[in-house]
Amino acid sequence: MEKLFNPKSIAVVGASADKQKIGAAVMLNLINGGYQGKIIPINPKREKIFDFRCYASLLVVPDEIDLVVVAVPANAVLEVVKQTVAKEIPYIIVISAGFAENGDEGKARELALLEAIAGSKTRLLGPNCLGVASSAAQMNASFAAQMPASGNIAFLSQSGAFNTAMLDMAAQAKLGFAYFVSVGNMADINEIELLKYWERDEQVEVVGMYLEEFSGARELMAIAQNSRKPVVILHPGDSQSAQAAIASHTGSLAGGAMTANAAMQKANVIKVSDVTEMFNVLSMLSWIGMDDFGERIAIVTNAGGPGIVATDLIEAHGMRIVELSGQVQEKLREFLPGASSVHNPVDLLGDARADRYGQAIELLTDSDEMDTVIVVLTPQYMTEVEETAEVIAKLAQTSNKYILPLFLGGEKIDEGIAVFHKHGLAAFKSLAEGVQALSKIVEWKERRLQTKYDMAFDKFVGLERTIDLNEYLTGGSVTLPYFAVEQLMQQVGIRQPKERLVGSREEALQFAAEENFPVVLKATADQIIHKTDDKAIYLNIMSESELSVAYELLFETVAKLTKQSAPRLLIQKQLQAKDYLELLLGANRSGSSRVYEEREAGFGHLIVFGHGGIYTEVYKDINSAILPLNHAEIEQLITTTKVFQIIDGARAQMPLAQHLLIELIGKVQLLLMTYPEIISLDINPVFLSTTDCLAMDVKIFVG
Amino acid sequence: MEKLFNPKSIAVVGASADKQKIGAAVMLNLINGGYQGKIIPINPKREKIFDFRCYASLLVVPDEIDLVVVAVPANAVLEVVKQTVAKEIPYIIVISAGFAENGDEGKARELALLEAIAGSKTRLLGPNCLGVASSAAQMNASFAAQMPASGNIAFLSQSGAFNTAMLDMAAQAKLGFAYFVSVGNMADINEIELLKYWERDEQVEVVGMYLEEFSGARELMAIAQNSRKPVVILHPGDSQSAQAAIASHTGSLAGGAMTANAAMQKANVIKVSDVTEMFNVLSMLSWIGMDDFGERIAIVTNAGGPGIVATDLIEAHGMRIVELSGQVQEKLREFLPGASSVHNPVDLLGDARADRYGQAIELLTDSDEMDTVIVVLTPQYMTEVEETAEVIAKLAQTSNKYILPLFLGGEKIDEGIAVFHKHGLAAFKSLAEGVQALSKIVEWKERRLQTKYDMAFDKFVGLERTIDLNEYLTGGSVTLPYFAVEQLMQQVGIRQPKERLVGSREEALQFAAEENFPVVLKATADQIIHKTDDKAIYLNIMSESELSVAYELLFETVAKLTKQSAPRLLIQKQLQAKDYLELLLGANRSGSSRVYEEREAGFGHLIVFGHGGIYTEVYKDINSAILPLNHAEIEQLITTTKVFQIIDGARAQMPLAQHLLIELIGKVQLLLMTYPEIISLDINPVFLSTTDCLAMDVKIFVG
Repeated sequence: MEKLFNPKSIAVVGASADKQKIGAAVMLNLINGGYQGKIIPINPKREKIFDFRCYASLLVVPDEIDLVVVAVPANAVLEVVKQTVAKEIPYIIVISAGFAENGDEGKARELALLEAIAGSKTRLLGPNCLGVASSAAQMNASFAAQMPASGNIAFLSQSGAFNTAMLDMAAQAKLGFAYFVSVGNMADINEIELLKYWERDEQVEVVGMYLEEFSGARELMAIAQNSRKPVVILHPGDSQSAQAAIASHTGSLAGGAMTANAAMQKANVIKVSDVTEMFNVLSMLSWIGMDDFGERIAIVTNAGGPGIVATDLIEAHGMRIVELSGQVQEKLREFLPGASSVHNPVDLLGDARADRYGQAIELLTDSDEMDTVIVVLTPQYMTEVEETAEVIAKLAQTSNKYILPLFLGGEKIDEGIAVFHKHGLAAFKSLAEGVQALSKIVEWKERRLQTKYDMAFDKFVGLERTIDLNEYLTGGSVTLPYFAVEQLMQQVGIRQPKERLVGSREEALQFAAEENFPVVLKATADQIIHKTDDKAIYLNIMSESELSVAYELLFETVAKLTKQSAPRLLIQKQLQAKDYLELLLGANRSGSSRVYEEREAGFGHLIVFGHGGIYTEVYKDINSAILPLNHAEIEQLITTTKVFQIIDGARAQMPLAQHLLIELIGKVQLLLMTYPEIISLDINPVFLSTTDCLAMDVKIFVG
Repeated sequence: MEKLFNPKSIAVVGASADKQKIGAAVMLNLINGGYQGKIIPINPKREKIFDFRCYASLLVVPDEIDLVVVAVPANAVLEVVKQTVAKEIPYIIVISAGFAENGDEGKARELALLEAIAGSKTRLLGPNCLGVASSAAQMNASFAAQMPASGNIAFLSQSGAFNTAMLDMAAQAKLGFAYFVSVGNMADINEIELLKYWERDEQVEVVGMYLEEFSGARELMAIAQNSRKPVVILHPGDSQSAQAAIASHTGSLAGGAMTANAAMQKANVIKVSDVTEMFNVLSMLSWIGMDDFGERIAIVTNAGGPGIVATDLIEAHGMRIVELSGQVQEKLREFLPGASSVHNPVDLLGDARADRYGQAIELLTDSDEMDTVIVVLTPQYMTEVEETAEVIAKLAQTSNKYILPLFLGGEKIDEGIAVFHKHGLAAFKSLAEGVQALSKIVEWKERRLQTKYDMAFDKFVGLERTIDLNEYLTGGSVTLPYFAVEQLMQQVGIRQPKERLVGSREEALQFAAEENFPVVLKATADQIIHKTDDKAIYLNIMSESELSVAYELLFETVAKLTKQSAPRLLIQKQLQAKDYLELLLGANRSGSSRVYEEREAGFGHLIVFGHGGIYTEVYKDINSAILPLNHAEIEQLITTTKVFQIIDGARAQMPLAQHLLIELIGKVQLLLMTYPEIISLDINPVFLSTTDCLAMDVKIFVG
């Protein structure tokens, strides 16, 4: 992407001198941004624009062009793209709107652009975007009014407005970016290619993205997962209304929020949920190094009350207020006034000037009892806001601990905040905002250090496909019949309770005679699908006469529902619920059955595990994770539910057979890998005892 | 408090012309604040201070004095207070620090001040505070450098630094206050008196408080509960570390966070957890009227992405994005460009100028399909930030819907925010902050309209005290023995399973013969207290021989533990757990046994209800509420747990005997009201079936 971000020459198609026009804005941004390469305006009606020689079309430009920026009406864009391709220009940024975001006509227009570049050397960014700013090249090839300062952040956004807001915040906070990209509709160049490029680019240390949809969900996550650079993503759509809005905004269907969240968690992406939060987390990451922060926190404050409020917030966000050692307390005591508190939070008192702050912070950052020092300041009578900020900024530059300034107030405090911004140090005027952003990056670091995730998003190895599911693949979603489910269970070795499909009352009685009462008689999963309110299961059958009655009733019901003259029914050995814990295990596919082969096809299967039976509804104690899962991830899926306390033997009970449960989840995964046609799979309940793990009821949809 | 907040004359003891001194700051604040009454500096070393005639002591001042402000060293304060009392001056503000916050010596000093004013006409604010600002009187009787603009908010804080930060924020946002009070140690005048005064004061429409401890918890809540004015409280201490910090900060023990939270919820106090959040909620409440807002929300935006992000945030905070009617959509369509979205969030597109915003907002606020219109703006190429803000502010003033502007960006946006502040309209630069504050006040309004709470915090009526607990009141916390528990249960009619205290194996066998096996044999609650790891309960005893063995074993254990030669054991009819739902019911007292008579004694009893047995630990599905509870509140206690779904008959099960459970909680409450000596009470488990509700195991501590 070298020629996109660092072109030697840029042609602006639709260039204008009329400042109301986007073509003028792009020209002026290039000029005022300090771009050192050649600027070539294209406009058939002009000779010169802002003193640059103007050409009638790309075709007549004698010089070599690395990048075209086009801002002409939508219906004139195709011709420009064709000319770009004809001249073998490597990159074109299409700012113009009126494409896929704009109904069927727009979609057709966008398709035409893609056809024009297909097989060519030209790559296209946009359409419907603001453009690109690259600070190394001092290039603002966009119509955004601001050029970010140079720095170590790379940011991309599907929403131009999001970019604009971030740019304005960045200008105020003097936050620096290496790249600032508005990707628009991502018709060609997408977030995956950009992330790959930024991964290798040494200027970039932090990546931020606003993405309403993922171009290649699993691929993006695989890159993020392997990245040593933190990747921060705002992916809206957790709520129903937001999903509807995204659908109407981009014309695309939003993926399941649960799947996207599971994927981001697996990839250790830092997930944020607000524009400001995105900005805060990026600015904090932009400053700190990997080793300089952590969850052991000390607070230094000139204000007891706000120090206590910060303490509550820190613990609410899962971080820890460390207890200072006697040694550190004594050293603090040496220079602090008698009324100070040398416990954490360290209260320097209201009359603390810059030197007292400096001494205390230096002492704390020199100890190894904490990872992060939060400095709280309120503008009191004696407070030296600016001087204190200078002292803190200096210490922050030399210390190997992270120092996070949280200054509370209005105008008086702004001077201090400005000092921090001048030094590139993230600082906040809200305790909650600062603490929340810190907790996000602390969690990122911990997950990065502790958990080993399976990286092989794309290396699925299933079993041999011995079962032919083709007859069920009718284009829609189909329940697998009992026989096919049985075969699948047997292939991967998933154990079910003793059961038999019986075609007559005699066969049912025979099963009961062999296995003893109590038994269960029920319709099979594919029969139940047709079920309305009819009774489809008879539990606790204790005798031959009860079984006979149940058989006749159920036979009639199933015959009526399925319109079969001789339906077969399922008889099962009844297990005693009190001996087993009821769990739920399921899977859902996000994307098509080709999801593991095609990049754009979605996330793949999400495995869902949790407490079963009535408690599924009551406590919704359910975890989920996307494939593939290694042993540690399966363990994590189980151990992070609350019901795990029971599996693990809460209240001195015997622990249940967790290893069999892990095995079962592994087998389900193998099944999904072998038969990606499986849309959804439900084992509800799984019966887990101290020695046994059985799949009681299995429903599978394919398609 | 008229003479505290609107005095005709103020004496400043410790007045100075040296601007480094607090005595000078107070003088200058009075002068520069525009105070119109008489200012009388007191300083034996001066004739005049800032052109005001200075006196050597209060005693020689010829004029009448309404208020004394004192800022001399701690050890000189007592003499000033004595002179104030001698001159029958109604109010004294003690700014000086070095009192109860400062060890035993300080506590003694504070006590001496209280003794000096005891029985006099003088009331004292402080010590250890910043002072008072009253905007109606244009009086800044504090050493805080800023005087708030006048407005409808009354604010008090135990932390001077909190005040300082709020003042600086208020100055920047031009937020107006009627009263701004630093209460310091609250040795005499406390938050209750101030709230009472503000309740009656027509200037005041909103009250905010930062309180680390409550002077009279139940009284404060009773006033807040009855108030038509919203009361916003930041009461830190939810975390362990914060409670420790409060203890070291104020020298007092923090009350239980659970009890305080239950009390604030009952009183419908708006609970906030950050300084900025306090400011945000106050500024929002300061603007809006009771009828102008609600949870049905429409968004107007010039930015699709941020509109979607706002949608997620709104739904995550429990509010609702309404679907616009076809009629409203059509009207929007009439003037919006074709590419706009007329669904909610309404996307005006990036080129929306002030007029387009105005037209859309007016149309929405004129419809009755929503309560609140959130206006999102990002600074795009065509955006008229200031003009749009002016248009919004004008509409906000005339509309009966609440309009909440959320403008995203940095410097460009600040101009717009300044416009809102000029008009007194709350506006935010963060989606999350604005949405969070709105959700707090929407919840306040809903609770206020929907739930009727029992207001009679102080009108406890128990039964006749027929049981003498005196012998157990030894000064500490004591377990009640079985007999006393039995008597208490019988007095209020709490049903227990069939059980008997038996003194011999024969008596045990006799019980089993009468009631049939299975039975349970166990130690009584007071015996178990001594228990270490010894087995104190034998379940599922099915035969005479099993019972004989169990009796011998338990007898030996209890005899050893209790050192009684002939302990009696408890035999119970065993109930089948599968027929019952196990619940937990408990109570804890916060404060002394005189809590219902003495104002400072604490909150009283907290009743705790939730899922029992193993699930208590697993899901912590527990609710709590403080006494007294009316029928609706008891219902709410039960119905807002998750386990209520089972009580209510989840998955087409028969509903359980909820009315018996309500009755049981009522009986427990009656017991606590009759015997406030009860420190804690635990019924674990309560067995609830479709027809029955039994207290299985009851433990009671008194003291």
